[in-house]
Amino acid sequence: MTRTRVAVAGASGYAGGELLRHLLAHPDVEIGALTGASNAGQPLGGLQPHLVPLADRVLEETTLEVLSGHDVVFLALPHGQSGPIAAQLGDDTVVIDCGADFRLQDASAWEAFYGGEHAGTWPYGMPELPGQREQLRGATRVAVPGCYPTVSTLTLAPAVAAGLIEPEVVVVAASGTSGAGKAAKPHLLGSEIMGNASAYGVGGTHRHTPEITQNLSALVDGTVAVSFTPLLVPMSRGILATCSAPLARDVSAEEAHETYAKAYADEPFVHVLPPGQWPQTQSVTGSNAVHVQVTVDEAARRLVAVGAVDNLAKGTAGAAVQCMNLALGLDEGTGLTTIGLAP
Amino acid sequence: MTRTRVAVAGASGYAGGELLRHLLAHPDVEIGALTGASNAGQPLGGLQPHLVPLADRVLEETTLEVLSGHDVVFLALPHGQSGPIAAQLGDDTVVIDCGADFRLQDASAWEAFYGGEHAGTWPYGMPELPGQREQLRGATRVAVPGCYPTVSTLTLAPAVAAGLIEPEVVVVAASGTSGAGKAAKPHLLGSEIMGNASAYGVGGTHRHTPEITQNLSALVDGTVAVSFTPLLVPMSRGILATCSAPLARDVSAEEAHETYAKAYADEPFVHVLPPGQWPQTQSVTGSNAVHVQVTVDEAARRLVAVGAVDNLAKGTAGAAVQCMNLALGLDEGTGLTTIGLAP
Amino acid sequence: MTRTRVAVAGASGYAGGELLRHLLAHPDVEIGALTGASNAGQPLGGLQPHLVPLADRVLEETTLEVLSGHDVVFLALPHGQSGPIAAQLGDDTVVIDCGADFRLQDASAWEAFYGGEHAGTWPYGMPELPGQREQLRGATRVAVPGCYPTVSTLTLAPAVAAGLIEPEVVVVAASGTSGAGKAAKPHLLGSEIMGNASAYGVGGTHRHTPEITQNLSALVDGTVAVSFTPLLVPMSRGILATCSAPLARDVSAEEAHETYAKAYADEPFVHVLPPGQWPQTQSVTGSNAVHVQVTVDEAARRLVAVGAVDNLAKGTAGAAVQCMNLALGLDEGTGLTTIGLAP
Amino acid sequence: MTRTRVAVAGASGYAGGELLRHLLAHPDVEIGALTGASNAGQPLGGLQPHLVPLADRVLEETTLEVLSGHDVVFLALPHGQSGPIAAQLGDDTVVIDCGADFRLQDASAWEAFYGGEHAGTWPYGMPELPGQREQLRGATRVAVPGCYPTVSTLTLAPAVAAGLIEPEVVVVAASGTSGAGKAAKPHLLGSEIMGNASAYGVGGTHRHTPEITQNLSALVDGTVAVSFTPLLVPMSRGILATCSAPLARDVSAEEAHETYAKAYADEPFVHVLPPGQWPQTQSVTGSNAVHVQVTVDEAARRLVAVGAVDNLAKGTAGAAVQCMNLALGLDEGTGLTTIGLAP
Repeated sequence: MTRTRVAVAGASGYAGGELLRHLLAHPDVEIGALTGASNAGQPLGGLQPHLVPLADRVLEETTLEVLSGHDVVFLALPHGQSGPIAAQLGDDTVVIDCGADFRLQDASAWEAFYGGEHAGTWPYGMPELPGQREQLRGATRVAVPGCYPTVSTLTLAPAVAAGLIEPEVVVVAASGTSGAGKAAKPHLLGSEIMGNASAYGVGGTHRHTPEITQNLSALVDGTVAVSFTPLLVPMSRGILATCSAPLARDVSAEEAHETYAKAYADEPFVHVLPPGQWPQTQSVTGSNAVHVQVTVDEAARRLVAVGAVDNLAKGTAGAAVQCMNLALGLDEGTGLTTIGLAP
Repeated sequence: MTRTRVAVAGASGYAGGELLRHLLAHPDVEIGALTGASNAGQPLGGLQPHLVPLADRVLEETTLEVLSGHDVVFLALPHGQSGPIAAQLGDDTVVIDCGADFRLQDASAWEAFYGGEHAGTWPYGMPELPGQREQLRGATRVAVPGCYPTVSTLTLAPAVAAGLIEPEVVVVAASGTSGAGKAAKPHLLGSEIMGNASAYGVGGTHRHTPEITQNLSALVDGTVAVSFTPLLVPMSRGILATCSAPLARDVSAEEAHETYAKAYADEPFVHVLPPGQWPQTQSVTGSNAVHVQVTVDEAARRLVAVGAVDNLAKGTAGAAVQCMNLALGLDEGTGLTTIGLAP
Repeated sequence: MTRTRVAVAGASGYAGGELLRHLLAHPDVEIGALTGASNAGQPLGGLQPHLVPLADRVLEETTLEVLSGHDVVFLALPHGQSGPIAAQLGDDTVVIDCGADFRLQDASAWEAFYGGEHAGTWPYGMPELPGQREQLRGATRVAVPGCYPTVSTLTLAPAVAAGLIEPEVVVVAASGTSGAGKAAKPHLLGSEIMGNASAYGVGGTHRHTPEITQNLSALVDGTVAVSFTPLLVPMSRGILATCSAPLARDVSAEEAHETYAKAYADEPFVHVLPPGQWPQTQSVTGSNAVHVQVTVDEAARRLVAVGAVDNLAKGTAGAAVQCMNLALGLDEGTGLTTIGLAP
Repeated sequence: MTRTRVAVAGASGYAGGELLRHLLAHPDVEIGALTGASNAGQPLGGLQPHLVPLADRVLEETTLEVLSGHDVVFLALPHGQSGPIAAQLGDDTVVIDCGADFRLQDASAWEAFYGGEHAGTWPYGMPELPGQREQLRGATRVAVPGCYPTVSTLTLAPAVAAGLIEPEVVVVAASGTSGAGKAAKPHLLGSEIMGNASAYGVGGTHRHTPEITQNLSALVDGTVAVSFTPLLVPMSRGILATCSAPLARDVSAEEAHETYAKAYADEPFVHVLPPGQWPQTQSVTGSNAVHVQVTVDEAARRLVAVGAVDNLAKGTAGAAVQCMNLALGLDEGTGLTTIGLAP
């Protein structure tokens, strides 16, 4: 069989490195061009020393010429840079964007949260949403979901869809630092991160807020109000999302669990834990799995669900490969794993 | 001046060690008996190697005979053990309990969350609550608040008291591991904790839930519903509490901040950060300070407040010393600091 | 093709979990019996939540009956327990011991460092040593090397074998905590580990000392004196070994690097980094790779080499699978990777 | 009593912040001007949020005009910047330099390791060295030792001075990240640091090498050869130095311990642990204490000593305050503590 030839634009960053880690494990893929920005011309070995088989590969400039001639192009670029490049790549190339450019349907939300002109909307790469897997099969353009929206959406979707809760959810998501990328900023220094927990983007100002709202609102008539607070905690990878909402009616913990178990029964990568066992991020480190648990707080009359994801794996690169598989007509799970790296 | 002679029961644990660190810095205190359980007979140097000046002190049994003859006895014992010992100590001894035994007013809440008979209710050691400072002046018995209730209460109290929010709050609090104590349990091993975030006590089952409810409900007519979820994140110390509730009326971020700034203007240890600056636990490590910030999420129509505390310091031992100062008629801040250890 | 049926004794510990993570990724293996000690009867999902595909498998007792009927039995048991079980398993079963029981050739060294009777000596599972790969091909018994000896030996072997250094080496190896296992001990609590670095087994008392001595001495006439100090540093996985020795003659940094590059040119899992790039443990996390670098300190007249390994992967489970492949006549690298999980 | 008025140049960095934390705890000090470079004009609260009492203080430019009129000026500036400023400050001002500019006696060593012209040599701020305390009493210029040299020197000095070891020492020192400062560099990002251990400056190239050599060589006739390797491990603070050297004669572990205990018997800040107890950095976090232990490896015929220090405290700011106390004729320990912050 002919292998699928893929390029990765933005190969020196965390998302790019994780894409390559995934692609190296994919049996049907041949890794073609790798591009960087300020790192173009450097060997990958000094930038991503964990990717031993690619140590001698040299980064190229992110140009149409370099990216042409591949079956699949992954874009792992800063927000706003995917649009212009994607526009140049023909429809015979599958383009999978790990950035935010094509995730939102609402241009005004894009402008309010990201600024600048909205590039458009592509099929949204979350096959676990109703009807979404079909849209991704054979797609030539895919917008990979954001990391926080991935875990927040999957942790709340069954409750929202089944009408167990009122459409006003609270999400507090504790994240590792790799989601903030590899650009050196003082507040992301190891000295600032270790022994420290902090909140940021409080009050609905984080850019992933409209994406979570979009995903959950699509499950109901009307809008789901989302109160989203991201936290930075001292770990490199992983997001733990604690999600809750007022009960819409009397719901027992058992009913809630059954609703979730049923919703995800056929999903290869969403794992509803047995009752009483709560998700931890370590269990999904490096894997494409999402671990979810749900219960009901009788006294507070709220449903509480917790989800864990690896922000770089299922939260970015794993989802990207899962979508590539669907786009190419491969088995959805090819090259992916549900097995985390623990401890 | 005669120094106050203090004993610490439970000197080998984390709360006991932190009490001693604080007491060693207190100019008016002389450290008397130190007791342990299974560690009785051992020198403190092997158990608390950071407390160099006490390295040669030997732990004694936790008995009335050992604890008698001190002006102040601090109890840092497992829940349920303070009651019997406290009953034997006379009213001429100030007894400050760092455990939960005497925190709750509602015997049925005690029985539901802790089991066994309720030992009683002592003056609650949170001087920042309305009228509470006066109760603690000259008190001979003090129940030191729990670590989660300390930060959750102080982060929400101004909003609750001012009627800015509906009485249904959501608290998600990310904690370091020292709050779980020094008893060796597999899920608290370093290998399990590092690179990992997890939730526990989900659905209102954590024992600190009724204490938070008690504190906030005392500020209003009626009951405040509390949805509380604690998280374990990879750091030794610190709690970051993300708290939110539906707005009771139109409230701007500015009004919310002013309400908080005014409420804590005269408090020596609660520091409302300037607008736009959010709390981080590192800033309060080892200190008696609480850092708080608040805003309003217009889209979700919720007030969101975040607080940071060191669970062992202001969350336990610092509050205990603050209360001792009040009980003895000393300046409330003697031996305490607002300066954290960072980075 | 018929899959190789394997059993894992000690499946609830860290070595056992890592063996299963590796075996799940192995294309030619079918996972048979899994055993535990106090955990027998429990489903694996609660003990190793990262191993989703095995969540419903129930641990059995570690008995001959349970372990019989497998092509390969991996033993991941406390030291001293492998001998009795191995003795019962026939030579038609490949037995791969991840414990220390069969590593040492010198019975007196065993008795001095481990106590009790020496169980014997099996083929030593480090194919990178001269002549060792041949011994492992078709072997039915393999003693998997210790984690510290793996990285110490591979980091020093080329210099020792080429006579670049005097036979008196100093090894200081900083290790993550998973090497200490999953048994709950107070000094391994997260609160004790984070923000902390400590030394233990100082002065040549660590049990891995004679194993390092044995490996290096086999490369020369006579004995290599080994000063070995292990450190515990705040990470779950990984060992970074800093190794040095007096130069035996004038050696340039270039010659040292060439010696290493040549020694490992054909090794699939030992990666000598380009000059100037130093190993870091993150690069090998979860992988079977060892990263090595070497230089010469002209002023101190010492060769200094640094090696990085994942103690659970190449340091235990990866080496075990590598040896199984050799024992079974499979390609040595089947199911293994050189790609680390970073960041 | 009139308080000593002090200025801190470089108040926004880690050394500057730690100086201020120490100075705020000093009873005889009044904090005057605070200066920054690119941060001049900003309030300290946003840069050092843990220093609550100074939150509203605004950083000024680092000029003679700003620094004049203080009794003591602390310089916490990048290497090479202290010389020009110090030259302008009169001898009636005590100048304490936390940088490297004035530590080395050998101008050629300065040029080889730092580049540029050597600024000169000031009294070296390590009162624990023979005769050094006297030099510091009443001094108007003090060069604060480097963090690695502090712990390496104090861990080896008694063995060197007593002639227990050959003059060829090996030091491997595992450090937290704060020693690398607050300037944002990609390899110091939290994502790169957590779960990672790495070596740098291998082969005698680290700038602290000549300083360690200078200190140890002063204790003997001739030169002590120093093989120094620094490691970066995932913690914010602390250095653990593992030091060893060949025995010069038969030495028992007991004799070694007695030699150390005697050498430091009168030192307020160097604490030789009881036999069998090994240093850990957590015990000295935030304190001015150094913990040391020593033993003998009979088989390798080496003395092995381990020391722990907080690089920012006794390794920088604590030593600076200790030296200020000596310079001003105050009690040496004023405002300093031997009590660490643990866990």
